[in-house]
Amino acid sequence: MLKLYWWPKTRAQRAIWMIEETGADYELLPLDIDDPVARADPAFRAVSPLGKLPALLYDGGGLADSAAIGLWLADRFPEAGLAPAVEDPRRGRYLWWMVFTTGVIEPAVAEKLGGWPASPRRNGWGDYDSMLGALEQGLAQGPWLLGERFTMADVMIGSTLHFFRQFGILPENPLLHAYADRCVARPAFQRALAREAG
Amino acid sequence: MLKLYWWPKTRAQRAIWMIEETGADYELLPLDIDDPVARADPAFRAVSPLGKLPALLYDGGGLADSAAIGLWLADRFPEAGLAPAVEDPRRGRYLWWMVFTTGVIEPAVAEKLGGWPASPRRNGWGDYDSMLGALEQGLAQGPWLLGERFTMADVMIGSTLHFFRQFGILPENPLLHAYADRCVARPAFQRALAREAG
Repeated sequence: MLKLYWWPKTRAQRAIWMIEETGADYELLPLDIDDPVARADPAFRAVSPLGKLPALLYDGGGLADSAAIGLWLADRFPEAGLAPAVEDPRRGRYLWWMVFTTGVIEPAVAEKLGGWPASPRRNGWGDYDSMLGALEQGLAQGPWLLGERFTMADVMIGSTLHFFRQFGILPENPLLHAYADRCVARPAFQRALAREAG
Repeated sequence: MLKLYWWPKTRAQRAIWMIEETGADYELLPLDIDDPVARADPAFRAVSPLGKLPALLYDGGGLADSAAIGLWLADRFPEAGLAPAVEDPRRGRYLWWMVFTTGVIEPAVAEKLGGWPASPRRNGWGDYDSMLGALEQGLAQGPWLLGERFTMADVMIGSTLHFFRQFGILPENPLLHAYADRCVARPAFQRALAREAG
């Protein structure tokens, strides 16, 4: 049985959607991320050394970071078809998108919003404009990042765009908005919302 | 046959070390990352939409981003033993470390060096101090991140610490320096250096 450390209005929403896409049973472990005592809980910190949400417990272990959790879940529940198999030629593109949110989008957006100087050669994430260009190019064909096949990478990218839209920072590109709409319309996304609402 | 887009003094060094750890045959495709014409090469951009190194071509596909490349290689060459299997309880911790360099260390260090205000609740990478604390805690036991077993996560983290040491920004913690020494002493690391030197 999976157990997910969770708190409303955090990145843990993405992990609930992930688990819903796998069809696995799970339990939510509420952890008030703004309460220093709760955040210091040793069982939580053992799987989330940074004290961040989401964090997932499974039989024998656990992990934090939504990209890592998505990678774990998609391979652990292969019957859900959320990841190309290791020998599948599309595996490379899948992995590239899986690490794109935390390694590229988030720092690039923080850089842009913070007005920090771009340094595309030095920074692994390039810069905001090349990040956005890659996103638009990746979604030009659709309906999903790997074409007809929905994968866990769509949960990573779709939840990110949905989150940006809620904060009013998703660029006015119809392609990005239509993709976010498709993601929100997923039954698993809707089940995740309902589960969060209790 | 693997083909790696590569240029001296770039993150592609890490990918060479990765391939050397797998034992796979490979070819280097020099790509001058400072030459706009070379960077715009369509075959290169097809696998590296951001125009960043490293980027890897394999039979039927390809991918960029050293974390994604490491994930791909470790699972594709299981005989090298560089990744716990999907059912292994240590898989979660392995994945967490695999995405730690690009998702946490690099933005946290850029934030620190740039003097940007930390925002540990909002930013997925937390902040510099919690990043460093997690690294020190993760290496306290050793010799590798997963204990006795060397994995691709050690290539990710070890290459990062080696890189920081070369730039004089690795904190003066004997634990981190001893770990970087162990990484540099790996035969595969030394073969990677020799291969780069031509």
